Amino acid sequence: MSTKVPMRIVIVGGVAGGMSAATRVRRLDETASITVFEKGPYVSYANCGIPYALGGVITNDAALTLQSPQGFKDRFNVDVHENMEVLAVHREDRVLDVCAKGSDAIQQFPYDKLILSQGAEPFRPPIRGIDLPNVFTLQTIPDLEKIRQYQAKHGCSRVAIIGGGFIGLEAADALHGLGLQVSIVEAAPHVFPPLDADMAERLHTEIRRNNVNLILNAKIQKIKTNGVVLAEGPPVLADIVLMVVGVRARTQLAEKAGLKVGKTGVSVNSYMQTSDPDIYAVGDMIESEHRIAGRALELALAGPANRQGRLAADNIFSRHMAYRGNVGTSVCKVFDITVASVGLSVRALRQLGYDPLWITVHPPDHAGYYPGSHAMTLKVAFEKKTGRILGAQVVGIESVDKRIDVLATAMQAGMTMFDLEHLELAYAPPYGSAKDPVNMAGFVGSNLLRGDVRILHVEDLKLGADNNSQIVDVRSPAEFSRGHIPSAVNLNLNTLRDNIESLDRKRRVIVHCQVGYRGYLAYRILSQMGFDVVNLDGGYKSIIDGGFTALQTTDEKL
Amino acid sequence: MSTKVPMRIVIVGGVAGGMSAATRVRRLDETASITVFEKGPYVSYANCGIPYALGGVITNDAALTLQSPQGFKDRFNVDVHENMEVLAVHREDRVLDVCAKGSDAIQQFPYDKLILSQGAEPFRPPIRGIDLPNVFTLQTIPDLEKIRQYQAKHGCSRVAIIGGGFIGLEAADALHGLGLQVSIVEAAPHVFPPLDADMAERLHTEIRRNNVNLILNAKIQKIKTNGVVLAEGPPVLADIVLMVVGVRARTQLAEKAGLKVGKTGVSVNSYMQTSDPDIYAVGDMIESEHRIAGRALELALAGPANRQGRLAADNIFSRHMAYRGNVGTSVCKVFDITVASVGLSVRALRQLGYDPLWITVHPPDHAGYYPGSHAMTLKVAFEKKTGRILGAQVVGIESVDKRIDVLATAMQAGMTMFDLEHLELAYAPPYGSAKDPVNMAGFVGSNLLRGDVRILHVEDLKLGADNNSQIVDVRSPAEFSRGHIPSAVNLNLNTLRDNIESLDRKRRVIVHCQVGYRGYLAYRILSQMGFDVVNLDGGYKSIIDGGFTALQTTDEKL
Repeated sequence: MSTKVPMRIVIVGGVAGGMSAATRVRRLDETASITVFEKGPYVSYANCGIPYALGGVITNDAALTLQSPQGFKDRFNVDVHENMEVLAVHREDRVLDVCAKGSDAIQQFPYDKLILSQGAEPFRPPIRGIDLPNVFTLQTIPDLEKIRQYQAKHGCSRVAIIGGGFIGLEAADALHGLGLQVSIVEAAPHVFPPLDADMAERLHTEIRRNNVNLILNAKIQKIKTNGVVLAEGPPVLADIVLMVVGVRARTQLAEKAGLKVGKTGVSVNSYMQTSDPDIYAVGDMIESEHRIAGRALELALAGPANRQGRLAADNIFSRHMAYRGNVGTSVCKVFDITVASVGLSVRALRQLGYDPLWITVHPPDHAGYYPGSHAMTLKVAFEKKTGRILGAQVVGIESVDKRIDVLATAMQAGMTMFDLEHLELAYAPPYGSAKDPVNMAGFVGSNLLRGDVRILHVEDLKLGADNNSQIVDVRSPAEFSRGHIPSAVNLNLNTLRDNIESLDRKRRVIVHCQVGYRGYLAYRILSQMGFDVVNLDGGYKSIIDGGFTALQTTDEKL
Repeated sequence: MSTKVPMRIVIVGGVAGGMSAATRVRRLDETASITVFEKGPYVSYANCGIPYALGGVITNDAALTLQSPQGFKDRFNVDVHENMEVLAVHREDRVLDVCAKGSDAIQQFPYDKLILSQGAEPFRPPIRGIDLPNVFTLQTIPDLEKIRQYQAKHGCSRVAIIGGGFIGLEAADALHGLGLQVSIVEAAPHVFPPLDADMAERLHTEIRRNNVNLILNAKIQKIKTNGVVLAEGPPVLADIVLMVVGVRARTQLAEKAGLKVGKTGVSVNSYMQTSDPDIYAVGDMIESEHRIAGRALELALAGPANRQGRLAADNIFSRHMAYRGNVGTSVCKVFDITVASVGLSVRALRQLGYDPLWITVHPPDHAGYYPGSHAMTLKVAFEKKTGRILGAQVVGIESVDKRIDVLATAMQAGMTMFDLEHLELAYAPPYGSAKDPVNMAGFVGSNLLRGDVRILHVEDLKLGADNNSQIVDVRSPAEFSRGHIPSAVNLNLNTLRDNIESLDRKRRVIVHCQVGYRGYLAYRILSQMGFDVVNLDGGYKSIIDGGFTALQTTDEKL
């Protein structure tokens, strides 16, 4: 038995980061005194499950509560105080001011090492009506209980969700499943901010297909008890308004204590130490470096919070485990489709000064000849010079999460698009293809990097004014007749070699097919024949799924 | 337009490797003359789909035929000759002897570069009765047609599948779905050779749960028209016998031509070149290096064949693209479960002289509080010194393929178990956990590598004779009463700290729980209290699922 003086470790805030830290501390030191102060009534619950509990997908709230204070005491010898708020940190004396809920009495509590894990606060923008009783946030079990009480009292059939991020989309899906009439009100031009607009358009289609009223570019004038009034367009009728427009790091306590705070949260080094070496901070409240951005970006994810909590504990015990930064790997179920991303979108990369290359592919999620196969779309951005992967976005029906995890692993390993060509992934007909979607992205990206193809992105495709180009659609006449680019000529790939002289050698050829592969084959033929040619990235499917309506026509117009 | 003399490229054998090479050659050189000779009647079909077509999961055989000779001509300007066999390679003259099926006439055909892609032959062991009309292999569309014709004529209700590898298991699943009475006859102690025995036991349970007659360690005496006679035990009654006991590389043509041939196939360098620099070979017929084994191992997978075909074409055009070797990433659907592996099993590693560490975890495939969550089992082997991943095996119900692909990517990137701790993977409740199963494997493996825990594997757990150990089961009394290790004492983790003096300090403590986590917590408590302790890897679940019946008892025996 040790005779050393037990180290007093205090953790402010439970849930992912705090409880990961508490339990890790105990595993590392059986003698430490560990105390957790949690402002709210639940120290350990699955906040990621809240939208699903509201929607009745999770039928038993008890399933959300992962561990009770007594459970922590019995198993980990951790003292958990729920409904206790830490009001101040007296760093010079290493003492906290703590206050029980509903009490005025301030108690003092000493620490040797302090871990802050206070999370982030749902943002409540200063909109007129924001404080009405029908406006709710959706982060905690008390939020859930409040909404249910209101529902029980008032009876609700319509809900307006303000914000089209993770929680908004998950809540829309779940509440729609309950039979409610759901509206999503989003201020930005598209939902799910980690995506580029063309990829997000696939979500818009799915959301609208489910009869959810989706309003983009919305300017809210005010909230009323019967809904949301917009600056333009009809009001959004709703009995309940969910305000899920992101979160703000809870930095007040740290600021008050004089700790360094950055733009998006409390500043920490890679050992999770704040500007006071005896105080650590983890989870949504901190500013942590995005590995691709090379600087802090907002991020509120459970995985990083868990890992940071563990690392803070490690570093208290001098294990010197550095946090590697975030890559923002995320996934969301939106009705029947799944959307996932890692790293940065093309838009975000450009905002950070990158000039990335990117490619789009639409491979089947598993072998087309095995039942239940669907096309998915992968957009992968990478560095022009090196081929290093900078970001990936995937939308589809099945095993989207698999492809993003593979791409996230590849990115974290520093792999390039060339490495994706070589990647040996598991294949059997129910699960994938001999050339997996990730391999396909690697092939297309590597072709581009090696100069074996030049591509044009749909967003750069201009109609009309450009007399220096001819658009050649190499799909079959039947495909062409079902819809095509207005000014395109149809020249089936299978007859291209025999009809090459019908093309104007003086003008650039923009070649395309349905998804990009036949266009690439046509590119190889034409470029070797001396044509100036580009292949349309992602083909006609990228035009349709990306919502580029001006670039579509149908046979009615033929 | 080029005026160079067209290069004459001849490919022997179609399907994955051959057609990948043919189409890649065309993309790289529009002027090349490309000829494919395919001995069989189908140059391009999905051989991985054959078991599913037999089982009626794939309802339309046409879906298996990926491309016709005319299709290749139209799209790729490739001359495909089906039912044409290459009998000899005259390397000094660069000429082939070619013969059409059913003809005696030998034609000569010149080449500049030759690509061999002849695949592998289903092995037909020299068993009495192997040539009976009710014995079939299951690799090609003609195989499929033969079986169907026999079925139609004789009417079959029972099938014996000899061999419990990929094809045998897929066929068993599919044929069972058709309502047939299925037997699997396997010579080895377990099915699915890439697995260790304890992991394969989970497949045995699933196979038997589906009323398939599974016979292991089977010695076949002879095959008869009504079934299979074994050296021991009752005969296996069957109307049809499928012989799916692996394949042998087709090396005869290469051997006859004097090319270097290794133990498992034609020898090639990393550019897919045989001992004759103008002759390349790809796919199941070659001997290609296993990246973990550091030498050739048998492997018949479509993914590598496709990539090798592409690389052979690249290298013909001096692109110097090296094949990186195999890691054997594979996946198989076995009724309601999925089994997957990458790298080498512990058994295979030991046979190669490795002394690996390994760990076993049973995490849920996604958050336990979200509907439809199931435990999966991951076994990961790694290098003692460095933590480098050497192999992984995963068995479970959902998203097993995802975890093996992440582990395969990590392995190919040279990652260690420590890297798996840090991996940021996509999490939302329907898809995973904040600590993904791959992270969990990383935590447990890293704990072991850092000396934060010592473990004992179930296979090393001895009962009775060992008076120097005490087995302590830290689960709840209710769990204990449902079944436990015969000589174990029950000491609930939550009361361990208060009852530590009930343990004998002079004897080693073997601690365990259900899956390993509580055992690890108990380990941390006891080891810090000065006990000599080990945690049972994978817990009691590893005993049950791994089929260690001698280590189980139930409350009847209490």
